[in-house]
Amino acid sequence: MMCPKNDSYHLVEIPTIQIIGVKGLPIIKKGDNLAELACDTAERQGIPFQDGDILVVSHVVVSRAEGNVVNLDNVVPSDFAKTFAQEFGKDPALVETILRESRSIVRMGDGKLITETKHGLVCANAGVDNSNVPGERNVALLPKNPDSSAQRIRQEIRKLTEKDVAVIVSDTHGRPLREGEINIAIGVAGIRPIRDRRGEKDLFGYVLKVKRTAIADELCSAAELVMGQANEGIPVAIIRGYSYPKSESAKAIELTRPREKDLFI
Amino acid sequence: MMCPKNDSYHLVEIPTIQIIGVKGLPIIKKGDNLAELACDTAERQGIPFQDGDILVVSHVVVSRAEGNVVNLDNVVPSDFAKTFAQEFGKDPALVETILRESRSIVRMGDGKLITETKHGLVCANAGVDNSNVPGERNVALLPKNPDSSAQRIRQEIRKLTEKDVAVIVSDTHGRPLREGEINIAIGVAGIRPIRDRRGEKDLFGYVLKVKRTAIADELCSAAELVMGQANEGIPVAIIRGYSYPKSESAKAIELTRPREKDLFI
Repeated sequence: MMCPKNDSYHLVEIPTIQIIGVKGLPIIKKGDNLAELACDTAERQGIPFQDGDILVVSHVVVSRAEGNVVNLDNVVPSDFAKTFAQEFGKDPALVETILRESRSIVRMGDGKLITETKHGLVCANAGVDNSNVPGERNVALLPKNPDSSAQRIRQEIRKLTEKDVAVIVSDTHGRPLREGEINIAIGVAGIRPIRDRRGEKDLFGYVLKVKRTAIADELCSAAELVMGQANEGIPVAIIRGYSYPKSESAKAIELTRPREKDLFI
Repeated sequence: MMCPKNDSYHLVEIPTIQIIGVKGLPIIKKGDNLAELACDTAERQGIPFQDGDILVVSHVVVSRAEGNVVNLDNVVPSDFAKTFAQEFGKDPALVETILRESRSIVRMGDGKLITETKHGLVCANAGVDNSNVPGERNVALLPKNPDSSAQRIRQEIRKLTEKDVAVIVSDTHGRPLREGEINIAIGVAGIRPIRDRRGEKDLFGYVLKVKRTAIADELCSAAELVMGQANEGIPVAIIRGYSYPKSESAKAIELTRPREKDLFI
């Protein structure tokens, strides 16, 4: 520990992770090859993909590329949707779209709709998103199968670059008991979403009993810091330097705790 | 967009955030000056603090430095603690310590204790932590006032280095409806924990109505990726390159949604 100030020689290897925003992607539209656009853009930026990178992709661009966008003018609302919409000054077609994406309703109160989506996620408005979608009456749904979307992007990147890149599809997520939203993982490919540390020892030899870290959620939250959520135009980020547990079969549903097993609610 | 492969010349400025683990801190004990140790260690690593850095500190080392550690052998359990402990094979002194840190109980089931701490946080075991605390019978409590702890560290860093560094105290957090834990913020200094983006426009001019990003939680989750939670011995991380909203008066309690206002539960 004798190295002087400002010396670039390090006695200790410094663990560093980089979160790199992929900037300059075109506006994503139906049929676009997201993987190819991400590869091209990253390469032009001088940050071509490397083995071990993690690519975090906002679900909105995945949905746009997959054409999973609905024009509310084409939605005929049910009586139930109309009743709820009228009571709270909502758009009946938007309420109908949310109901169609849901398999059950967790809470309807104060004009807010918390539902369980067909994927099993519990979230506001079934993840139906009217920001960052071109066209005033267009809303983006969640991708139909976010794990498959992630897997397709992963395979396409491997084909184009021969690099082993894990892919995570992220969503913005309002939380029980916490204010503000964070980004979480709704689809994964090539990475285990939870790092199970039970059985490992801590600094003092104490064997950990309950540590299971939701690393896919943490990676999405880290990526949000560069992606932003408004007009930055950075729907894709690379996380470089993080050593993660690999898996070809893991799915994001592992991150969802069934409501009936939940102790908090 | 004509720059060739591997050219270091970038036509687009690349938004990059670094998460840097501060490695090589001594084992923190009561009375240690955490800020000074972090400054010294970061400087020896060749990564001295810069203006605009965010320092994320695990609550366990804050509690150890502040002496907020309890030896369970010195705790006399109440009858209630003994009854619950006996039913589920728990340590009565540990249950008593959890109850003493709590102002109400949210759930007691299956041997698990979810409580609301005196700070107003809802969490498992009132945040009482028996990992990474030396001494088999010692447990770390949450810092008494994590915002004040963060502020003290921030002021001390400014005194030692003249740099403006935001400080966040983090905790590992099990979540309603999600499996696995993530790190969140329980104390802040110099940073607004929520970035309020309502009123900003998205990429297509749509005015955002609901975006309030819990950036302090996202920063703690990002930091966890280098800090780990087991035997890495990295209780402190620097986040560099993230432009955050500054505040001298913000508090982490802004991240806590009162139970009576929660729609999810």
